[in-house]
Amino acid sequence: MNFNEKTINKRNIYSGKVITLDIHNVQLTNAAIAEREIITHPGGVAVIPINKDNEIYLVKQFRKPYEAEILEIPAGKLEKGELPETCGSRELKEETGLTASKIIFLTQMYPSPGYTDEVVHIYMAEDLVEGEAARDEDEFLNVYKYKLDEAVQMIKEGIIKDAKTIIAVMMVKLLIEKQPADIA
Amino acid sequence: MNFNEKTINKRNIYSGKVITLDIHNVQLTNAAIAEREIITHPGGVAVIPINKDNEIYLVKQFRKPYEAEILEIPAGKLEKGELPETCGSRELKEETGLTASKIIFLTQMYPSPGYTDEVVHIYMAEDLVEGEAARDEDEFLNVYKYKLDEAVQMIKEGIIKDAKTIIAVMMVKLLIEKQPADIA
Repeated sequence: MNFNEKTINKRNIYSGKVITLDIHNVQLTNAAIAEREIITHPGGVAVIPINKDNEIYLVKQFRKPYEAEILEIPAGKLEKGELPETCGSRELKEETGLTASKIIFLTQMYPSPGYTDEVVHIYMAEDLVEGEAARDEDEFLNVYKYKLDEAVQMIKEGIIKDAKTIIAVMMVKLLIEKQPADIA
Repeated sequence: MNFNEKTINKRNIYSGKVITLDIHNVQLTNAAIAEREIITHPGGVAVIPINKDNEIYLVKQFRKPYEAEILEIPAGKLEKGELPETCGSRELKEETGLTASKIIFLTQMYPSPGYTDEVVHIYMAEDLVEGEAARDEDEFLNVYKYKLDEAVQMIKEGIIKDAKTIIAVMMVKLLIEKQPADIA
């Protein structure tokens, strides 16, 4: 059965710097009409930098929606026409000063599929070289380094709550972590 | 250093059924003024139901922002004054027909902290009893059952992209999965 919701009518409420809000009147499978409030977002790229000691770098920045400083992996919005890998390397350098000679795709994720079309492309950065950060003039953040297992523990304890950060840490831990040679 | 962004001025753009959009003019750490587009959302609850055979239940429903049917764990919006556990049990029953005698808190997550204040409360449901679903009249979805390890593989392959679903599956796998007795 096809559950498509066809747009009958659409009106734009707001087109801003980051997000656009449209209201769609849609026709449902049972022919009823419903309203959908939909955010359009340019998409984002997030990068988990991991060094050869299995340490990751997180940034802590103030996030107005929560009125709090939040721990996240480095991330930013896609510029028009920009490749996700390029955006990831750029944001990594800007926010942490790190350059990576290996950028490995982990996954795409949908943060909240009920009302936003945002797609976050998540990468792992390896072979890191530290350098100078080059933050935007309205970007204020601090950089912290954690052992991968410490970050897993911080997820368990609810200290790390950001979705892309939880996903990146757990994917690195669960799917990609280099196993030490078995000690028989 | 304190990176708070103080609201100097706020205007409401839209107050809808699900989301509210406000534009804040905020004062940054360097005294500059910046604009923040902020979505207010009532918050959500998501529940990963897992049976004694380590199978989980996912629902597939059309999500207008992506114009596609998406695989997700059962979830819904918090009603005003509703406890997350109550909301989780209600949505689980409505969407899948399942009732659970154990509802265990896994974590809270922030789907996209740059522009939305949404908090998703994630639970695991155990000791499941199957029954009749009771969907909202404008809710159309199908229920599927997967082995936990199959769901992990679907994350790896990019088939599961929903943030709360990735997080719930990986937390159950990584942090909570019952280990079979070692076979020596």
